Amino acid sequence: MSRNIRVEESKATPVSERRIELVERKGIGHPDTLCDGIAESVMRALSQEYLDRFGGILHHNTDESQLVAGRSDPQFGGGNVVQPIYILIVGRATKEFEGESIPADSIAVETAREYIRDSLENINTESEVIVDCRMGEGSTDLKDVFEPESGSAPNANDTSFGIGYAPFSPTEQVVHETERAIYNDLRHDLPAVGEDVKVMGKREDDTLDLTVAVATVAQHVDDLDAYISVMDDVEEYVRGVADDHFEGEVNVAVNAADDRDAGSVYLTETGTSAEMGDDGSVGRGNRANGLITPAREMSLEAASGKNPFNHIGKLYNLLASELSNNVYQEVDGVEEASVKLLSQIGSPIDEPQVAAINVQTEDGVSVEEVEYDVESVVDDGLENVTSITQRIINGELGTF
Amino acid sequence: MSRNIRVEESKATPVSERRIELVERKGIGHPDTLCDGIAESVMRALSQEYLDRFGGILHHNTDESQLVAGRSDPQFGGGNVVQPIYILIVGRATKEFEGESIPADSIAVETAREYIRDSLENINTESEVIVDCRMGEGSTDLKDVFEPESGSAPNANDTSFGIGYAPFSPTEQVVHETERAIYNDLRHDLPAVGEDVKVMGKREDDTLDLTVAVATVAQHVDDLDAYISVMDDVEEYVRGVADDHFEGEVNVAVNAADDRDAGSVYLTETGTSAEMGDDGSVGRGNRANGLITPAREMSLEAASGKNPFNHIGKLYNLLASELSNNVYQEVDGVEEASVKLLSQIGSPIDEPQVAAINVQTEDGVSVEEVEYDVESVVDDGLENVTSITQRIINGELGTF
Amino acid sequence: MSRNIRVEESKATPVSERRIELVERKGIGHPDTLCDGIAESVMRALSQEYLDRFGGILHHNTDESQLVAGRSDPQFGGGNVVQPIYILIVGRATKEFEGESIPADSIAVETAREYIRDSLENINTESEVIVDCRMGEGSTDLKDVFEPESGSAPNANDTSFGIGYAPFSPTEQVVHETERAIYNDLRHDLPAVGEDVKVMGKREDDTLDLTVAVATVAQHVDDLDAYISVMDDVEEYVRGVADDHFEGEVNVAVNAADDRDAGSVYLTETGTSAEMGDDGSVGRGNRANGLITPAREMSLEAASGKNPFNHIGKLYNLLASELSNNVYQEVDGVEEASVKLLSQIGSPIDEPQVAAINVQTEDGVSVEEVEYDVESVVDDGLENVTSITQRIINGELGTF
Amino acid sequence: MSRNIRVEESKATPVSERRIELVERKGIGHPDTLCDGIAESVMRALSQEYLDRFGGILHHNTDESQLVAGRSDPQFGGGNVVQPIYILIVGRATKEFEGESIPADSIAVETAREYIRDSLENINTESEVIVDCRMGEGSTDLKDVFEPESGSAPNANDTSFGIGYAPFSPTEQVVHETERAIYNDLRHDLPAVGEDVKVMGKREDDTLDLTVAVATVAQHVDDLDAYISVMDDVEEYVRGVADDHFEGEVNVAVNAADDRDAGSVYLTETGTSAEMGDDGSVGRGNRANGLITPAREMSLEAASGKNPFNHIGKLYNLLASELSNNVYQEVDGVEEASVKLLSQIGSPIDEPQVAAINVQTEDGVSVEEVEYDVESVVDDGLENVTSITQRIINGELGTF
Repeated sequence: MSRNIRVEESKATPVSERRIELVERKGIGHPDTLCDGIAESVMRALSQEYLDRFGGILHHNTDESQLVAGRSDPQFGGGNVVQPIYILIVGRATKEFEGESIPADSIAVETAREYIRDSLENINTESEVIVDCRMGEGSTDLKDVFEPESGSAPNANDTSFGIGYAPFSPTEQVVHETERAIYNDLRHDLPAVGEDVKVMGKREDDTLDLTVAVATVAQHVDDLDAYISVMDDVEEYVRGVADDHFEGEVNVAVNAADDRDAGSVYLTETGTSAEMGDDGSVGRGNRANGLITPAREMSLEAASGKNPFNHIGKLYNLLASELSNNVYQEVDGVEEASVKLLSQIGSPIDEPQVAAINVQTEDGVSVEEVEYDVESVVDDGLENVTSITQRIINGELGTF
Repeated sequence: MSRNIRVEESKATPVSERRIELVERKGIGHPDTLCDGIAESVMRALSQEYLDRFGGILHHNTDESQLVAGRSDPQFGGGNVVQPIYILIVGRATKEFEGESIPADSIAVETAREYIRDSLENINTESEVIVDCRMGEGSTDLKDVFEPESGSAPNANDTSFGIGYAPFSPTEQVVHETERAIYNDLRHDLPAVGEDVKVMGKREDDTLDLTVAVATVAQHVDDLDAYISVMDDVEEYVRGVADDHFEGEVNVAVNAADDRDAGSVYLTETGTSAEMGDDGSVGRGNRANGLITPAREMSLEAASGKNPFNHIGKLYNLLASELSNNVYQEVDGVEEASVKLLSQIGSPIDEPQVAAINVQTEDGVSVEEVEYDVESVVDDGLENVTSITQRIINGELGTF
Repeated sequence: MSRNIRVEESKATPVSERRIELVERKGIGHPDTLCDGIAESVMRALSQEYLDRFGGILHHNTDESQLVAGRSDPQFGGGNVVQPIYILIVGRATKEFEGESIPADSIAVETAREYIRDSLENINTESEVIVDCRMGEGSTDLKDVFEPESGSAPNANDTSFGIGYAPFSPTEQVVHETERAIYNDLRHDLPAVGEDVKVMGKREDDTLDLTVAVATVAQHVDDLDAYISVMDDVEEYVRGVADDHFEGEVNVAVNAADDRDAGSVYLTETGTSAEMGDDGSVGRGNRANGLITPAREMSLEAASGKNPFNHIGKLYNLLASELSNNVYQEVDGVEEASVKLLSQIGSPIDEPQVAAINVQTEDGVSVEEVEYDVESVVDDGLENVTSITQRIINGELGTF
Repeated sequence: MSRNIRVEESKATPVSERRIELVERKGIGHPDTLCDGIAESVMRALSQEYLDRFGGILHHNTDESQLVAGRSDPQFGGGNVVQPIYILIVGRATKEFEGESIPADSIAVETAREYIRDSLENINTESEVIVDCRMGEGSTDLKDVFEPESGSAPNANDTSFGIGYAPFSPTEQVVHETERAIYNDLRHDLPAVGEDVKVMGKREDDTLDLTVAVATVAQHVDDLDAYISVMDDVEEYVRGVADDHFEGEVNVAVNAADDRDAGSVYLTETGTSAEMGDDGSVGRGNRANGLITPAREMSLEAASGKNPFNHIGKLYNLLASELSNNVYQEVDGVEEASVKLLSQIGSPIDEPQVAAINVQTEDGVSVEEVEYDVESVVDDGLENVTSITQRIINGELGTF
């Protein structure tokens, strides 16, 4: 067996030292992220169903949900979703195996509806969303059933690759943390704040411009004054988050497209722009590490919804992120690490064609000094690659 | 104003005296009846919304729901709905009026989902049904808003007619009552009995053959023996109902298409055949009086889902049924009455082109003797025609 | 073998002698009739495909097409269909048999598109109509394959009945012939005349009111004057047709709902109201004899799209119509005949439970005198019942 | 006015000199590319319609088409598409402007159908594809109508960016040219070759592994021998293309996933894997320059279907590609150029926040020496930015 691990010194200018850096994160309630979340939750539910029934995972990929925006008439204090959001679940699943039928479509619909309800506090899934399903039928040969407990790695389904890096630059930290904090924390204190939050960070030298778009929830915003007050609260909160992670100057703009004089502000009934005009689909938003980072090497792969046991585009992206983190955190002297994994179609996924690690070391530390430790970390990670499957199913590893 | 009421003696042989009589009723859980029920409940919800917002009813017709059967794998003790039932709500509604938007599509979806949940005790609307909506946009002129409180009758939307009669023949009573009793009563004692019940009565002279199809609910039927026991209970129950209304010989067959030896019995997960292979649509089932009676004059009009204020095909069918009942019950000497109402497009609905009443009188009573009373009853009914609208919206007048 | 044929004298007042008679026909381009036509043509195409592949017909029923109206902006001289008509094909078909897959869905979509193109001269099927398909999968046991050449009658799929009568009353003739002549003849001389023609005939004593609604084709109507000229031509033409078949007074109203002063006339782009606001579905229009005749006994069965070999609701309605015609035309002394056929589920379709024939004889001819001949005609018809299947597939027997 | 142009020296190792390089191109018939093509052609048709009607372009974005794979049963010599491919057009368009209705949905459906027919020589669009449409309604203010002839640049709709570079590395050239040559050339000589071609190039040092997947067309492949012969022809052809552009060793593998012994080869009826199991959506395939190049900075933006006049994610990606090409071709001494454009929401699109150009110069040429020329080229390009709109509509600038 060969892991084909290669450790090299990184020569590129670190992202944080370049003059311009652009980073974006689409929040949980953004239409694209909603699709990612639905795709991933349906995949998890199907995997679990297969495991419960057959002790192994059968062929499926549910990475093609399409969201068609609704139409709404938001009003201060509460208006209406006039036409429901329409979500079409696409993909394929094994619907029959060993003479037993598996209710894949029913599971998909139920899971998607539950995911939406859990993700959007203010949506009424009975009236404001339609979940439709046109999932094709895949088939699984007996020999292709993946049994996590067997411990043996399945073969790669494709020649593809995954990319990861660690740590986040300060700009990346701010952008990521801003959305996370608003969703997990601020939203609970300020019910007017919805789940569709989009954060764009542009750093130019030492100045960070943070543009934050926050869908507000109409029933919790009585009038324009209340709206302005919410905007002020959000701005202050975001500034606090940014100051924790970024040392330079920070400019924060919240809902910059508003035209308050014209009464045109970012008001929604449900907390997401999907209710009015913003369509979404899987793989158009955040990469597996939660960010959109054009200046970094990125995979175009839509990880969400892909099967969790042999889909390289998914597994290697998640694994590469994790390995970079492990290298960065566990190997002394490493300041930055990026990992690129390239599969060989038909070969076991724990034996990549190449596992290339680029490291940036602290001043005074040579790559040769850390090489052995880095290899060990990566080797361990590859050895335990099948554990990723279970952690994906458990929801411990995110794809957006 | 002219009611154009004409009372005549009925010359046809009464249905109950003909050699052969065929009567059918599709129960609440039958796919066609489900569509009728959805269409009617959506219409009621929209009418109420219009009334609440504008004090009047705006243009709408929601009489075209289509149900596409799902796919299931029923098993004794409980199996699965593999592919959800798909329901497409079609029709049109006024979605904007006087600058205000009306969430007609959201209301339609919510109402349909609620109706299904209320009608089918064992269905899981989160996973086993998809409610989609492609409802067109109608427009309403200010002058066409129907204000029930104004008391003035709107003009007929069409040249059409409605038909009714009273009383039910004994065969009709049995067929109607059998389904009603199973749904309202037996079902609660026997949880294995679903809502999709179809009753066909064929009377030949004095012998009534009752063919009853009852969808059983898999989770409440442990095995074939339990199933057979349920069948026996249903048969006995139905026989009891029949004996209350029919004096001749009664033969009862329950789920006659079962092949018990082959293990092929009428088992469902949800209580309706819509889960597996039986599509449905509006207007293909019961007429407004709850029965299918080919030997009687019948309107083909799909009453369910039609607007409740000027749709002649709906109003005149309901009104004709009610007027026949009133004549039969209130006028001494009348043994049978049938009413046919013909509208004049553009004329007030309380001024039909013709209101023709055929009566069968008791021996010794002439039509002339009852004519005045019959006319009075019909005249009163026409005078109060607009009250029908409100009673339809309240759900007091059924269309299936 | 027993045909259970019973010949009786008809006692009811002939329809043409009653004071009021209502008859309606929805033309080829009416949304409901379009659905009937699609359903029937898809059924024929599938039957033929099964025959070509397997020498027998497999299980299918395609009787649930739903048409959702589009939205148009008709303008004199030509406007636009803004939103296409949406047609959903529903039903079930055998998609796999003896290891071979049958492209049932593809055939259904292609056939429906072709049918629409053939039926509506002015529609652009590339842009103005969407044909979607959610047809379920049925299964066919080897023993259930119907082989027309075997000559043996299949068993009835249900306890159901069919009804027919002959001849048409004069009013019925006028209504039927009016639409047929406009579609087959006038339309070719007057390109402004579309295919969506609805004819309602109300006879009161000797006076026939014919209300005709004709969708005009915008690109062939330059302005209001041209429209009025077309209306005049249609009226004159209809009057001519009526005069050929009806002896009393005839009043003709064409497009009576127009408000010419307000410029509101019945103009369409495609020749059908389906382009704007009028939905349609199978079985809501004409009965199998091409008419809606509430005063006659009618089956509610949607014959269109039902399988052509053992679906009683279809076969017996077609057969009953044909047998009535045969009796009327072949048996001297018969002035009117109606036939009612009642099947016995599981028994061969050529052995009905009852074949009841009611005849009206000429003055001076008794029922007894014609009884033997009538029985012979009906017996022959039942003997050749399987020939109906082939004629349905060939399109020789219509269902609407 | 300020263009904010900055020219810098590129410090990163050129892609072609790195050890590993991965490049991919999905051909015209790949499901994702089909969606891109549909999205873009619908956008072009709508833009043209708006121009023809109003002399300006109205608000629209049609960048969300979803393709749901069909099901097929390919057989040597010709089999069947059992279930049609389903394509849902999503997005929004202005459907009414200045009181005139625009048939946006009809145009979208027609254009998509035409695009599919033009792109896939062997598909039967009557039976093998369903094009559905759920496009929302956008609105356009009079002031937002973009009139290309006015010459004035519209304002950016977002703070976003575009990236481009030139020239292609040899690996990129090979990958791009391989698909282009197969589609434009080989396919016409070898009718067995379909349009769904996927090319993956992995260069490791001087060795290029080309993995090519080619959907073959069943009706033009009589048997396995014929298939193998086609594979040999394709391999030889691809090798020829590669040798024209790449100097090192080239390994070519065609349809490597085939299992010829098991009779499992890449056979299709239509020339695309969309007929069986492979879904697709917009923005998941090639970037605007026709390649997927994870080692290059890439935008995640789905350019296809976005409006052509103020959508930064589209315009700046196309413009950045073009500017890099211009710089590379027009400025002596430049060996490589990459351009990054960052917009300022609300500012004219010809005044970016930053236009950053990185150049690699020939040995002996300093960046300072070329700076002025580079700036001129970029300045000219920005000055003529609005010409891009017209060229997009004309189809001169591709997005995939």
